[in-house]
This record gives sequence, C-alpha cells and structure tokens, in this order.
Amino acid sequence: MRLGGIELGGTKMVCAISNENGEVLDRYTIPTTTPEETLPKLLDYFKDKNIDSLGIGSFGPVDLNKNSDTYGYITTTPKPGWANTDVVGYFKQLNVPIGFDTDVNVACLGEVTYGAGKDIDSVIYGTIGTGIGFGVYLDGRLVHGLMHTETGHMLLSKHEKDKDFVGPCPFHDNCFESLASGPSIEKRYGTKAENLYDRDDVWQLEAYYIGQALCNCVMCYSPKKIILGGGVMHNEKLFEFVRKETLKDINGYIKKDEILNHIDEYIVSPKLGDNAGILGACELGRLELAK
Amino acid sequence: MRLGGIELGGTKMVCAISNENGEVLDRYTIPTTTPEETLPKLLDYFKDKNIDSLGIGSFGPVDLNKNSDTYGYITTTPKPGWANTDVVGYFKQLNVPIGFDTDVNVACLGEVTYGAGKDIDSVIYGTIGTGIGFGVYLDGRLVHGLMHTETGHMLLSKHEKDKDFVGPCPFHDNCFESLASGPSIEKRYGTKAENLYDRDDVWQLEAYYIGQALCNCVMCYSPKKIILGGGVMHNEKLFEFVRKETLKDINGYIKKDEILNHIDEYIVSPKLGDNAGILGACELGRLELAK
Repeated sequence: MRLGGIELGGTKMVCAISNENGEVLDRYTIPTTTPEETLPKLLDYFKDKNIDSLGIGSFGPVDLNKNSDTYGYITTTPKPGWANTDVVGYFKQLNVPIGFDTDVNVACLGEVTYGAGKDIDSVIYGTIGTGIGFGVYLDGRLVHGLMHTETGHMLLSKHEKDKDFVGPCPFHDNCFESLASGPSIEKRYGTKAENLYDRDDVWQLEAYYIGQALCNCVMCYSPKKIILGGGVMHNEKLFEFVRKETLKDINGYIKKDEILNHIDEYIVSPKLGDNAGILGACELGRLELAK
Repeated sequence: MRLGGIELGGTKMVCAISNENGEVLDRYTIPTTTPEETLPKLLDYFKDKNIDSLGIGSFGPVDLNKNSDTYGYITTTPKPGWANTDVVGYFKQLNVPIGFDTDVNVACLGEVTYGAGKDIDSVIYGTIGTGIGFGVYLDGRLVHGLMHTETGHMLLSKHEKDKDFVGPCPFHDNCFESLASGPSIEKRYGTKAENLYDRDDVWQLEAYYIGQALCNCVMCYSPKKIILGGGVMHNEKLFEFVRKETLKDINGYIKKDEILNHIDEYIVSPKLGDNAGILGACELGRLELAK
C-alpha cells in the first residue's frame, strides 16, 4: 500500500508516503507560510504519487466532529491567515479516504502502531517543547470529545521558589505549558534550555512540574504507558528526575506493578523520533481506508 | 426485558430490576458488612427474579481488565474484609451475562442512558461527597485504561488562605478529594457541610477547588457535558460559584460556544438522583447481553 501522510506544523509542513510496515518511502518538507501558498504545494506533491489514503495531523485547534459543518477545519488559531481553514475539504480533490486529527494524537498513533506504544491499548504521548500537548489513546482509540484534549493547559501548583514567575501562556499563569515549556524555561532563566544542561536545579524544577502533570494524567487517563518527546525532553537526565517526581506525587495511591516497580518502562522516550507524526498520519489514513 | 443491577457501596448494597426504559421494577437494599455475609444475600435476591443480565457497579479499586486473572475483583481496598474479593466470579452462578465497572462509571452510564447526559457521547459524571470520583464516558464508551480513572486524586493548587490546611487524604495533601470532599470541609471548619449553608466564604473556597478541577477535566477529557452529584453538591448555590470559577480558570482558552455561552447547560446536576447508579448498572448488564 501507498499511504500518504501530512503533518501541518506551525513552522513546517511534512508530507510523506509510507507502506503499511511503517517504512517511509518518500518525504517532502516545506516551510509553513500562508494557506494559499502552502496547501497547493502539498496537494501538488501527492498528485502523481498514486496514494491509497491520506492522513493529516494538524496544529490546532481543529474541528474533529464529523457531524459539524466545519469538520476538518483549523478553527480559531491565532496563527495569521490560518483561522477557519478547511484542510480536509481542500484535499478531497485527491479522491482518497482522508483521516484528520491533531498533531499530538497522530504522533501518539504513530508510536502506538510502530514505536514505544506498540501493542498497548492505552497510551498517552506528550510533547514538551515550544508548546505542550498530549495525544490520548485509550482502550484502543484516539480520544476526541467536544473538541480534543488540551492537556498542556491543565493548571498546576507552583513551586515555592517559583511563586513570582509569570509564565508565557497568555491564558494561564500556572498551566503546565506556562510553567514547563521551552519558552517558559527561557523566560525564567534568560537563556535556552540547551544552555542549561549542567544546572541540576533547572531540571529539578522542570521535573517538579512535569511530575505533577504526569501524576494528574495517571489519575485522569489511567494510561498503560506514558511517552514523552519534544525538545525539552532531549535532556536524558530529565527522565530520571521526572520518574522520581511522578512516583513521589502519586505516593503509592495507585497500586499497580507497572507504576510502583517498573517506572522506567512506564515513562519512556518515543521510539520513532521525528517519524512519529508522519507515520501516525499515514496510519490514520490507512484506518480511514479500512473503514 | 428484566435487567438486574447491583451497586456495591461502602455503606450499603443496592440491588434492582429495571426494564430497558429505565423504570425500576423492584429494589432491595442491605447494609454492607463482610463479603461472606453480604454477597449471598444479593445472590439470593436475584435467584428467583428471572433476570436477563446483570450489571455491577462497585467501589474500588477494581480490576476491569478482561484478560487479567483477577478480572471482576475488588482489589486493594483498605475496607476490612473486601480486598481481593472475586465479585464477578461469585455471581456467575446466576448464568446470565455480567457487566462490571466502577460505581462512578456506572452512575455516569445511567445519566448518559436516561438522564442529564442522554444522547451525548462524551460526558463526565463527578460525585463530590465522602470521596470524590468521576465516571468518564468519551466518544461513546466508558474509559478504563490500566485500571480506571482516579480523577478525585488529581493534584490542585492550594488557595492562599488555605495554605496551612492539611487535608484528610492519607496519600495527597493537595489532591481534589483532600481539599474539597465532605470530610475535607468538616475537617477545615469543624462541622458538617450542611451546617455551613449560610457561609458564602465556605462555598467560594469549595468552588475555587472544584472549578480548578473542572478546568483540568475540560483540558484532559474535552467533555460535552459535566454532571456533578454527591452530598456536597446538594447546596444549589455551589453550582453558580463552580460555573463561575471554571470559566475563570479556563479563561477563554477553549473557544467553544457550549462553554463560553452555555455554562449553565454545560455543568449540571444529575437527573436521576439516587437512581443513576442502579440504572447504570442495569444498562451495563444490558450492554453485556447485547454483545
């Protein structure tokens, strides 16, 4: 099979063709400018590629409700030019089944299909970088609900030493993204996260927030595995701190062997690296074809 | 149809027979003592009732994983005598299909089938009383995952005025249940919630915590409706405070008409009152029969 996939990102767009074994056969990347300029280039790429299906993972917010008039749209994004963009409608010209979901749900699906979440029916995939978002796959399906989850905006309790910090999220002073994203670290310390790798106090505070958020994710989602990617998680030492903080916050309340005795296998890195999103997008298209 | 249902509660057990229109045809209640004493009485009740199916909602933690050796058990509860009790196995003697889930998931299913969540595919049902628990029904199905959700134990940010309060949860000083359950109110003020109805400051603080938790639920679950029951919610004024706090915490980030402009219909009371759990249990059995 030739499965088409698109990742619509805030800074770049990635297109690819994969087969059903998770092998990327071809790939094409362009910078994200306006919809008028970007979308036709993506369409052109696929025109002679003879794809069987197309899956699209997009930055949000997006409308995932198939009964809605604006299903398949990017809706209220502040990104100039992209609000109310009919993405799925545009690609209907390709005459193949189209799947559409958030960028993080699609990356989660990639890891569940081919990566660190393979053969596990309840997995959450968080990306902690410029923004914070979670893909949520429970009992064998991606979760949608009213819109889609916005786990990165759950409110957290500030650390005593961090009380006066004003985070970068314009909506929430103390949401997860405001306290622990890349821009949050940069705002707090005046330099980028990668320049702070030798400062344990920086990563202890970071783990304090991520651990709290993961504790809440364990309580709210009851996942079988938590996969954490994104630029901030590139610091391998952070994983150790995060596992410790998460256990400290759960504090023995969830008496499951997977958490109490195997935290190293419970909170893990992605296995597909940069391919999680695009392979998940291809799989999303395949699922749509299979319906 | 004659649908059997059981609610296993910490203080009482309720059995009932309903039809598929949500009418309770018969009901039987006994106090909860030991499994050896209580379970045979429940079994006896159903023996001559000619039921088509049985649904059971139980206090937890419970094992809901059908591939597990202890599926259908109450597992690690501190309740004396009840740890490692094989509930589903015991009722197999009735030779009918048996559904099994948490008490809150079952109450959520009741409200989704016949009550305030009727015809809505993504609903969360929270009970705020002696404990705090949420049933979670997303995209047309109850959520399970590794175990089941424990939303009442998500960690919250303490109010400035409440910083020195030590909540009653033995695991978490600042979880939702520790800060906002009935026992929490009683510990904070030295008297039961129902004696404090004229004290607005009590209910403002209560709403501060519930609003924070609901904001996090909106971020994590993206529900189409939030139903709140339990003893603490019997104070009708609290609903107004909670709606206001939830909107304040979301702070316009989720741009959905259902939340921004219809919060009165978004955060609501249960419609089935005390029947939510038992009717949900009956429906759970019916779903098992229909499989």
